[in-house]
Amino acid sequence: MEINGVIWKGDKLIEGVPETLDMLRSKGKRLVFVTNNSTKSRKQYGKKFETLGLNVSEEEIFASSFAAAAYLKSIDFPKDKKVYVIGEDGILKELELAGYQYLGGPEDGGKKIELKPGFLMEHDEDVGAVVVGFDRHFNYYKIQYGTLCIRENPGCLFIATNRDAVTHLTDAQEWAGGGSMVGAISGSTQREPLVVGKPSTFMMDYLANKFGISKSQICMVGDRLDTDILFGQNGGCKTLLVLSGVTTLAMLQSPNNSIQPDFYTNKISDFLSLKAAAV
Amino acid sequence: MEINGVIWKGDKLIEGVPETLDMLRSKGKRLVFVTNNSTKSRKQYGKKFETLGLNVSEEEIFASSFAAAAYLKSIDFPKDKKVYVIGEDGILKELELAGYQYLGGPEDGGKKIELKPGFLMEHDEDVGAVVVGFDRHFNYYKIQYGTLCIRENPGCLFIATNRDAVTHLTDAQEWAGGGSMVGAISGSTQREPLVVGKPSTFMMDYLANKFGISKSQICMVGDRLDTDILFGQNGGCKTLLVLSGVTTLAMLQSPNNSIQPDFYTNKISDFLSLKAAAV
Repeated sequence: MEINGVIWKGDKLIEGVPETLDMLRSKGKRLVFVTNNSTKSRKQYGKKFETLGLNVSEEEIFASSFAAAAYLKSIDFPKDKKVYVIGEDGILKELELAGYQYLGGPEDGGKKIELKPGFLMEHDEDVGAVVVGFDRHFNYYKIQYGTLCIRENPGCLFIATNRDAVTHLTDAQEWAGGGSMVGAISGSTQREPLVVGKPSTFMMDYLANKFGISKSQICMVGDRLDTDILFGQNGGCKTLLVLSGVTTLAMLQSPNNSIQPDFYTNKISDFLSLKAAAV
Repeated sequence: MEINGVIWKGDKLIEGVPETLDMLRSKGKRLVFVTNNSTKSRKQYGKKFETLGLNVSEEEIFASSFAAAAYLKSIDFPKDKKVYVIGEDGILKELELAGYQYLGGPEDGGKKIELKPGFLMEHDEDVGAVVVGFDRHFNYYKIQYGTLCIRENPGCLFIATNRDAVTHLTDAQEWAGGGSMVGAISGSTQREPLVVGKPSTFMMDYLANKFGISKSQICMVGDRLDTDILFGQNGGCKTLLVLSGVTTLAMLQSPNNSIQPDFYTNKISDFLSLKAAAV
């Protein structure tokens, strides 16, 4: 299930979540929390769950920061190559755990370019992949560095954690999402990225493979039609839309919406009343 | 004709240019210098021509910064509305000359966002257009501000000076171009911009209208296939590719290239030998 908009919104836990998770676990359901947010690693997410009083293990968390590292492993990305990161700390932490060398990330956030005549930006020819995720310290230095790697290093991969237009960075407003950083690099390289987060099926294939189950045995719970529900459908899973996040009932029922979940409900704790009804 | 790659490259005048311009003028040809670069206004461009010893008037210069302001005038954009600018000084100068109120631009270059719980970015509801051009001080503040205006202000326009992937900011290297800033805003708004620079036909229509000539009487001289030559062809003009800028002979002759100019030559001063042959 998605985290933002299902479990919490911005920094607030959504009503009834702890009891719902306990109930689902007591029924023998395996829970996996997936998120396109790449700013935190699984470990950092685990701490956030803990702070909110939820008992969730690292193994149950599947963030797009981890997906980027897991994707590189799945294709046997060479350990002597490097990864240039446009994004935040979560991606770096997961690359490090996976044993990859990286550069960029937060440390390039303060870098400026002085465009004097004859000036040339050097770049590392050993960079074999550029990973792009949400980055609040996005700047022209990173755009040019990532662009040079993708355009000039033969075979360099362009990997996006997600292309979400907006994201819940705070509960007060929607914020421009990873789609803007990815759009910038796509605009300067004229290349389309390989997306590892939702709605690409990479995460779902990985989970089915890891747990040895069929994808039709998974129910994807999420608050967004164009990422969560489409992601579930692309992966051949059942889908449940909750209206506690981005999507409203009006958006779901709009004639312009072509994505229909198998089920929808107001919030995940509605599972509790389902249980009562079943008793 | 295009400026960068035809007249100068980075900061160096291309060989034989002054004599060629003199010769063309002596033959009664009207010259117009067009550029997708929006960082300078026409006046600022005029000074650069002067510094390089070229005598070019403001009226002969058609930069995409001016095109953005001219486009707003052409649609009678209301003077009580404001323009949010993601870009550099040239756009601000041209908007000011056209009598429009603007905000953003360089002064938002140092702004940062602190994503505390409950934090919300306010935006001006009178913004009726967001103009996006190349911006070396691009940052997340500008992304979010422009995104809010386009997503939340009813009818707000999204105007791009150009979507060039790369640009000649210095003569030593190609630099990520306006296409990256535009791609970012397109990624977060899920909207396509209205492009006023090449290869859109807006500039060509404007020039034909202003000079009272037919577009088939214009020859577009440029160094890029996907902007200059396509621009000339879209506008119904003759086209001449010069190989003194971005495009090499191998790129022109590649089976992957579908854009063929009417003529091509190494550099614009080859007109001088044409003249000699004609004598």
